[in-house]
Amino acid sequence: MAVYTEVSDEELRAFLATYDLGDLLSFKGIAEGVENSNFLLHTNKGFYILTLYEKRVAEEELPFFLGLMNHLAERGLSCPTPIRSRTGEMQGHLAGRSAAIISFLDGVSVRRPQPRHCVEVGRALAELHLAGDGFALSRRNALDVEGWRGVFLSCREGIDGFKPGLAAEIEKELAELSRDWPRHLPSGVIHADLFPDNVFFIGDRLSGLIDFYFACNDAFAYDLAICLNAWCFEEDGSFNITKARGLLQAYAQVRPLGKDELAALPLLARGAAMRFLLTRLYDWINHPEGAFVRPKNPNEYLLRLRFHRSITSPAGYGLDA
Amino acid sequence: MAVYTEVSDEELRAFLATYDLGDLLSFKGIAEGVENSNFLLHTNKGFYILTLYEKRVAEEELPFFLGLMNHLAERGLSCPTPIRSRTGEMQGHLAGRSAAIISFLDGVSVRRPQPRHCVEVGRALAELHLAGDGFALSRRNALDVEGWRGVFLSCREGIDGFKPGLAAEIEKELAELSRDWPRHLPSGVIHADLFPDNVFFIGDRLSGLIDFYFACNDAFAYDLAICLNAWCFEEDGSFNITKARGLLQAYAQVRPLGKDELAALPLLARGAAMRFLLTRLYDWINHPEGAFVRPKNPNEYLLRLRFHRSITSPAGYGLDA
Repeated sequence: MAVYTEVSDEELRAFLATYDLGDLLSFKGIAEGVENSNFLLHTNKGFYILTLYEKRVAEEELPFFLGLMNHLAERGLSCPTPIRSRTGEMQGHLAGRSAAIISFLDGVSVRRPQPRHCVEVGRALAELHLAGDGFALSRRNALDVEGWRGVFLSCREGIDGFKPGLAAEIEKELAELSRDWPRHLPSGVIHADLFPDNVFFIGDRLSGLIDFYFACNDAFAYDLAICLNAWCFEEDGSFNITKARGLLQAYAQVRPLGKDELAALPLLARGAAMRFLLTRLYDWINHPEGAFVRPKNPNEYLLRLRFHRSITSPAGYGLDA
Repeated sequence: MAVYTEVSDEELRAFLATYDLGDLLSFKGIAEGVENSNFLLHTNKGFYILTLYEKRVAEEELPFFLGLMNHLAERGLSCPTPIRSRTGEMQGHLAGRSAAIISFLDGVSVRRPQPRHCVEVGRALAELHLAGDGFALSRRNALDVEGWRGVFLSCREGIDGFKPGLAAEIEKELAELSRDWPRHLPSGVIHADLFPDNVFFIGDRLSGLIDFYFACNDAFAYDLAICLNAWCFEEDGSFNITKARGLLQAYAQVRPLGKDELAALPLLARGAAMRFLLTRLYDWINHPEGAFVRPKNPNEYLLRLRFHRSITSPAGYGLDA
């Protein structure tokens, strides 16, 4: 996070006056989150995070995101909890943007996950899936198998400039994914972006999950497939089957996986790799010259996609066939 | 602050192990300070700031800066205090840089200072000058009247590109300042950069001073002249004599000003305006194309310099002649 929306003293004071949080003691921009502006807020009631929502998070979607965090926290999941204003609102306006005050969650994200971290993540993901049950709102996954095609078409022209022949490879893959995608797996609220950045640990113990701004309704096993991609590959591109087994087994201990979910895993993992390959390609191609943030290399996800194509059964991820 | 040095988990844990601060609970990059990387550190002993010193702050100068904060805090001034390691050190190494852990200071800087804030700042500046007494180390002011000439010569070529005729105006002014500069005023440790960014308030009460990385030994009244420039002009460039009177009177209540100091104020204020005019010109001229941080417009300080040239006695700053 590099750019912050400026908040004037007067605006901040007026905004805080709508909350029962006592006096303002400190307010500092923090480097967390990629697209929103986040501030550490200290009042004599404690420490909080104040988030200003920049363009990607549409105002009309905030009730889903904030309501979900509130729902999950009430169900005992460790995640940031929106603080309600004096009139009971979870979202307000500050500096021309939608804004929310959220509880401060301790923990540090790990840069090089170990197998023990993957076990913790598997368990927490299953707990999240169970805790989402009963949440009243729903949100379509804009980046589903149909959504990927939209991203592909919007940057198709530039893809072969990144790697000759890649556009054709993606097109063929998208056709297969679309044809074979399992559409009747157990579904509910998924995180959809549970990368190491979004999981906090204190020591080796998982202390909470953050950043629910991609959360949506989709197949639980697809969320697990995203985690396989995000947590179980080494920096050199190799697949760590010990991490995958740990993650999947820990998940299944909390929420047992059905036969259909297990059988679908290789295809779901291909789809998850495709989703991140495409958004990274889009960012790479549309990256303004000289911009501050360097886009992530899409190639990593192309290699993961090809890896998952080579897997024919859950045994490839370390589970008993 | 935009660019952070990356700190790996392993390095951070090893560094923290040299302190008696308990377990790491949270670690977030914060947007504070212009040239160092600052992180909010939460351990089960409390909240702290961890600073990594980037190139401008030379390692050999850190004992002065950290020692000064420690000295001032021991004398009761509200400022960040360096935390000592288990072996009693105030500075260490982390991620290839000098590093220090400093107490977390509550407060918020004001963006639009009011006269009441200027009164608080005048008082705090005098308290700082008194509290610096007895500090064992000293540091020459690299940006003194001779230092300004060096900055001028290093960017002279580009100055008329910013404003035709300005190089000649500065040259003439520098000659006068150098000729008339008072060299025997009461001196000691000065902050030398006490802009609104570096003063914290809780409500209307000043809660502390931060960022001592320009501190040095020089005339106390020059520090006051820097504050006149930094606190007493309005956004439209006009001089607010009510703010100046409040600042100067509050200062003098804590540390009375001598006749020589009062008489020198207009010249010192010209010098202070020159110092910021020159460093802003330097940054403006040497600003890399497309860089992230937009340099501040030097023109503001040219107008202040010209204003101070029109002042012939302390009455021009609201004091009784």
